[in-house]
Amino acid sequence: MSIDSFLASGNSPGDFTRPAALVAAAQRCRVGILGFGTVGSAIARRLGGADPTGAAGAPGTVDGLDLTHILDRRAFAKRDALKGHAPAFRANIVWTTRFEDVLASDVDVIVEAIGGIEPAAEWIRAALMAGKSVVTANKQVIAHHGPALLQLAERQGRQLRFEGAVGGAMPIVRAVSDGLAGDRLTRIVAILNGTSNAVLSRMEATGCTVAEALVEARHRGWAEADPSADVDGIDARAKLAILCGVGFRLRVEPARIDMRSIARLQPAKFEEVRRRGATIRQLAFAEYDRARAALTAWVAPAIVPRSSIFARTCGPQNAALITGEHAGEIGVFGAGAGGAATAVAAIGDLLAIARDRSAIVPAPVWSAPSLVKGLDRGTHIVDFDNRSADRQTGRRLAEAV
Amino acid sequence: MSIDSFLASGNSPGDFTRPAALVAAAQRCRVGILGFGTVGSAIARRLGGADPTGAAGAPGTVDGLDLTHILDRRAFAKRDALKGHAPAFRANIVWTTRFEDVLASDVDVIVEAIGGIEPAAEWIRAALMAGKSVVTANKQVIAHHGPALLQLAERQGRQLRFEGAVGGAMPIVRAVSDGLAGDRLTRIVAILNGTSNAVLSRMEATGCTVAEALVEARHRGWAEADPSADVDGIDARAKLAILCGVGFRLRVEPARIDMRSIARLQPAKFEEVRRRGATIRQLAFAEYDRARAALTAWVAPAIVPRSSIFARTCGPQNAALITGEHAGEIGVFGAGAGGAATAVAAIGDLLAIARDRSAIVPAPVWSAPSLVKGLDRGTHIVDFDNRSADRQTGRRLAEAV
Repeated sequence: MSIDSFLASGNSPGDFTRPAALVAAAQRCRVGILGFGTVGSAIARRLGGADPTGAAGAPGTVDGLDLTHILDRRAFAKRDALKGHAPAFRANIVWTTRFEDVLASDVDVIVEAIGGIEPAAEWIRAALMAGKSVVTANKQVIAHHGPALLQLAERQGRQLRFEGAVGGAMPIVRAVSDGLAGDRLTRIVAILNGTSNAVLSRMEATGCTVAEALVEARHRGWAEADPSADVDGIDARAKLAILCGVGFRLRVEPARIDMRSIARLQPAKFEEVRRRGATIRQLAFAEYDRARAALTAWVAPAIVPRSSIFARTCGPQNAALITGEHAGEIGVFGAGAGGAATAVAAIGDLLAIARDRSAIVPAPVWSAPSLVKGLDRGTHIVDFDNRSADRQTGRRLAEAV
Repeated sequence: MSIDSFLASGNSPGDFTRPAALVAAAQRCRVGILGFGTVGSAIARRLGGADPTGAAGAPGTVDGLDLTHILDRRAFAKRDALKGHAPAFRANIVWTTRFEDVLASDVDVIVEAIGGIEPAAEWIRAALMAGKSVVTANKQVIAHHGPALLQLAERQGRQLRFEGAVGGAMPIVRAVSDGLAGDRLTRIVAILNGTSNAVLSRMEATGCTVAEALVEARHRGWAEADPSADVDGIDARAKLAILCGVGFRLRVEPARIDMRSIARLQPAKFEEVRRRGATIRQLAFAEYDRARAALTAWVAPAIVPRSSIFARTCGPQNAALITGEHAGEIGVFGAGAGGAATAVAAIGDLLAIARDRSAIVPAPVWSAPSLVKGLDRGTHIVDFDNRSADRQTGRRLAEAV
C-alpha cells in the first residue's frame, strides 16, 4: 500500500482529518506589541492584514495571530493610526500607555519594539517572568543581555526570539543558529548596517562626501537624525556580538569589539581604491580560533574587490559570508532594515512560537573567549575555496582601509 | 537590579544553574542511520567526531547525538569503515542489514540516507509509526510523499526534517519555511542542481561540449555515472516541488513541472549569449499568482546576465533568489551537494530534534494550484528593485534559451 493510500484509507486510529478551522481556533495566539514606532506599527499593520493583495489572514502570513494590545507612550494620539483596517481587528485591540496592562493581560507573546536597552530589557525580563514568550528586534538588548534572558526563557518554559535583531528580513540568525548548527563555524564576514552601506555605495557612485551621502540617506528614510551609531559602527558591533553568540557560542561584550568609524573617509580614498578594482564597505568581521579560544572581531571600513558580494551590496542592503569547517562558505543577502523587513522577521518569530508554544528551547551556553583581537592595519582577509573550506584561494576578500 | 545581577543573585526559585554535564546526559539522543553511502557515511563520521580539528563532541557540532545503529545492504563489508574513530564510539554501533533491527531498537531518530523512493518512503513511514523522528535528504520522497509523511509525523507527535533535500548545506528549507514565514512569497528562482551547474559553468569557461564537461564533472566527483536526472532536470524539479510546498504551501506533483534538458546545448550557444554579456544556467523557476491560484513552474536552461548571482554561481554551487511581498528579494548561496554539505544539513536537523523532542510541528496544509503553467519560449524574467518588492526594475534577470 502506498503512503498516500494508507493515509487516505482511514485504517489509522484517531481523528486524522481534523477540520482546519478547529485546529486554527485552538492554536490562536494572542499578541501584545510594545512600541508603535516604525517597527511596531509595521508589525501591527501586517497582523491586521494590510497586504498589497488585501487578503487578511491568507495562508502563510498571519495565521492564528491575534493582536490584542498595543503599548505606546502616545497611545491616545496614535490609536487612529490603524483606522484603515477592519473594524473587527481594531475593536480587538486595547491601547495603553502602561506596561502593567499588557503584563497582566492574557497575551501569549509580547513583541518588544521600543528600542534602547532600558526599559526594554526589564520589560522583556518581566514578560518572561509572567510566563509570556517574547519577540524582539532589539540588537542592543540581545547583545548585552541575550545569554541571561535566554536562560530565563528556558527556565520559564517560554521562548525568546530575535531574528529581526540582525539583518532585517535576511534570515541570518536562523541560518547561523539552526541551519548551520550542523557545521562548526569559523568565520563571519558581513555588512550588517544598511545606513553605512547606503552612504558608502552612494560615495562610490557619485564621488560625494560622507555628509552629502548622509543627507541623501536621510531623505530616503535610510538614516536617522543622529547617524553616529550607524556610521561609527555601534549598531554593527552589537549585531556582530549576537552572531558571535549564535554562531560561535561566544559571549562577547560589544565594547570589546574593535571599531573604526567611516565618518572620516574621504572621496579621494574611493578614487584610489577604484584604480585597484575595489571599493569600500563597512564590514563586520569575526573569526574564531577554537584551539586558542581566540576571537578576532572588528567593525571597520574595508577595501573589497568590486567582484565580491560585498561590493555588489548597494543601498541599505545587508550581506553575509559564513564559513564553516564542513560546508565551506554560505552566503545570504537581502533588505537589512526598515519596518517592512523587520516585521517579516518578527512575524516569522511569532509564527514559530504560535506553531509550538510547548517547545522549550534550551538556553545556549555561550563561553567567553580567552582573547579578543581587533583589526591590525594592513590586515587582509583571504577568500576561501568554496569546495573545500580549509583551502584558501589566495584571492583577497577584504583589506583594512 | 540589572538582569544579570538578578540572575546571578540566586533570588530566583529552582535550581537555575544545572551542571551542564547533567543536562547533556539527560538530553542525549540515539541515532540510527539507514544507508552507509556518500551521505550516510559522512554523517556517521561527523557523529564520530572526525573533524579536521580532531575535537570530538566540541560545542556546536554533535552535542548529545549518539550513533547506535547503521543499516546497510553491505553492512558486513563496511563495518571497518569507521576504524579510524574512537573505540568507544565504534563499540556503541550495531551494524545490520535488516531494517527491523533499527525499527525495534531504542533509537530516537532515524536518518534515512538510502535514496530513491522505495523502500525509503515506506521505511520513513514505519519509523514514524514506531514513534521515531526522521531526518532525510531524500528529495524524491519529500517531493512525492512530503505532505502525507508530515501529517503522519504530526499525528505521531514526532518530527520529520529534510533540510538536506534541497540546496545541500545552503539552509534554504529553513529560510523559506521559518525565516520567511512572516512574508508572503511570490517567486523563487534558483540553481538547485550542482552537477548541471558545474557542466554549464565549465562549458562557459572552456567552450567544451556537454559530454566533455560531464567527463570533467565525473572526474571531480560532481556527477554520477548516469547524469540524466541532473542534466534533464528531474533532480531540480523535485527540489522545486519541495520549495513550492514550504514557500507557497502548494502541493505540486513534480511531473507537472515543465522541464527542458541541458543535454542538447551547443558550445556555439554560449558564444552567442556571451556577446550579449550573458551566460547560461539551469534555472528552477516558480512564481505563484495567489489571486488566480496559478503557479508558473519550470526547470530549464536560461540565459542570465553575467552580473547576476546566477552567472556568478560556478562549479557545483547552488543559489536562490526568493521574492516576498514585504521583504523584497532575499538571496542565499553555497555548496549545493556532496556528503559533507548534506551532512551539515542532516546534523542541523538532528540537533533541532534533539534540542526539543517534545516539539510537535503541525503538518503544513499544502493546497493544489488550480493552474500550473510551464515555460513559454521567449519568456524573460524581470529583476525586482530590492527596496520595493512590487516595483520591477525592467532589468532582465533571466530569459528562456
